[in-house]
Amino acid sequence: MIRRILYDLAGADPALRFSPFCWRTRLALAHKGLDVETVPWRFTEKDAIAFSGQGRVPVLVDGGRAVHDSLAIALYLEESYPDRPSLFGGPGGIAATRFVNAFADTVVQPAIGRMIVSHIPDLLAAADRAYFVASREARYGKPLAAVTADREATRVAFRASLEPLRVVLGAQRFLGGAAPLYADHILFGGFQWARCASPFELLADDDPVHGWRERMLDAYDGLGRKAVRA
Amino acid sequence: MIRRILYDLAGADPALRFSPFCWRTRLALAHKGLDVETVPWRFTEKDAIAFSGQGRVPVLVDGGRAVHDSLAIALYLEESYPDRPSLFGGPGGIAATRFVNAFADTVVQPAIGRMIVSHIPDLLAAADRAYFVASREARYGKPLAAVTADREATRVAFRASLEPLRVVLGAQRFLGGAAPLYADHILFGGFQWARCASPFELLADDDPVHGWRERMLDAYDGLGRKAVRA
Repeated sequence: MIRRILYDLAGADPALRFSPFCWRTRLALAHKGLDVETVPWRFTEKDAIAFSGQGRVPVLVDGGRAVHDSLAIALYLEESYPDRPSLFGGPGGIAATRFVNAFADTVVQPAIGRMIVSHIPDLLAAADRAYFVASREARYGKPLAAVTADREATRVAFRASLEPLRVVLGAQRFLGGAAPLYADHILFGGFQWARCASPFELLADDDPVHGWRERMLDAYDGLGRKAVRA
Repeated sequence: MIRRILYDLAGADPALRFSPFCWRTRLALAHKGLDVETVPWRFTEKDAIAFSGQGRVPVLVDGGRAVHDSLAIALYLEESYPDRPSLFGGPGGIAATRFVNAFADTVVQPAIGRMIVSHIPDLLAAADRAYFVASREARYGKPLAAVTADREATRVAFRASLEPLRVVLGAQRFLGGAAPLYADHILFGGFQWARCASPFELLADDDPVHGWRERMLDAYDGLGRKAVRA
């Protein structure tokens, strides 16, 4: 049997897995019905994934082949396992899902980061903590506590920014239609990041996006719901 | 030969066609290679399209069947003309394109409206002008000149909101991939609305979105570029 390994960002507790990008990949693997062994990986363990030619996770090793970048992994899985359930629903699905991917990367996840990032250092192993704080404070240009100080206001704007998702969920149960596709995995990854790393609640109970997130938590035998939370 | 008619929003000049939703449909028909006779229609001509059961355009009459709502029309064309070039590239494309549609409807076009709406009354036939000003001022809660007074600031935010599109256009020439699909028609509709109705330039020359808009203007034998402008 081929060994399939996913390098998956972990906290000080190796069972705590909170990377939004790794969650996209874990759901994509589950969608394809592919078993995987996840290896806990820390931000500072660049050497452990140097074989992939870069320093970030997810990195999937599948039968000796290494693939990195969550979208590249999804495209690789789609091409390599065409007889398994599709992640995109055809070539037009791949093209349009790139837009969902870009929306998650440039709108949704940056906003989530501004609400939860100050909770993350406490979850990390000591070596990672210094790396994380220094690199993120450089990115934001301020202390992490200052980034999330405005999180109530950020949440108002965040909820407004989800309006396109809300409109779609008025017409169908998932972004992928009647069942989830990779577009759902993408957006769910950000919500799962927040759920695993922070107690701050992103959504109102009566938001249709909340209902969708519940359905996503239950999908794939409750893979998301079973996740360890901080 | 079956007569195919599109009721298409027009200005006082019947050749001036500026509805973003009607542009989506015109491009979709061109993509399918389907001839259509466009009928100029004014906001106040509700009686002329009452047969469709509602009062807005686009309304497509295809072989005696009436279909309204731009997305419903695109889905109708995809189902009715499966042997013509696909608008969605498969079922996953339909699902994910709904997200692009919702993004255009809730993010892109509302922002474009706040930059150009005060230019529209001057383009309209007299009867339409009073209707348009009253209904839009009620919607915005202020005079139309006040809506667009902040258009320079709106444009800054608008350009930032296009970042997901910009990211996708870094990977492929169109939202649909190597060639346009309905996702491109959707977003182009908003830009064409602005181009036909207003001299206000939405994009910087060096924006990848500008390059995409140029390609869309040239697509389908220059259908968009040939359009009459105010």
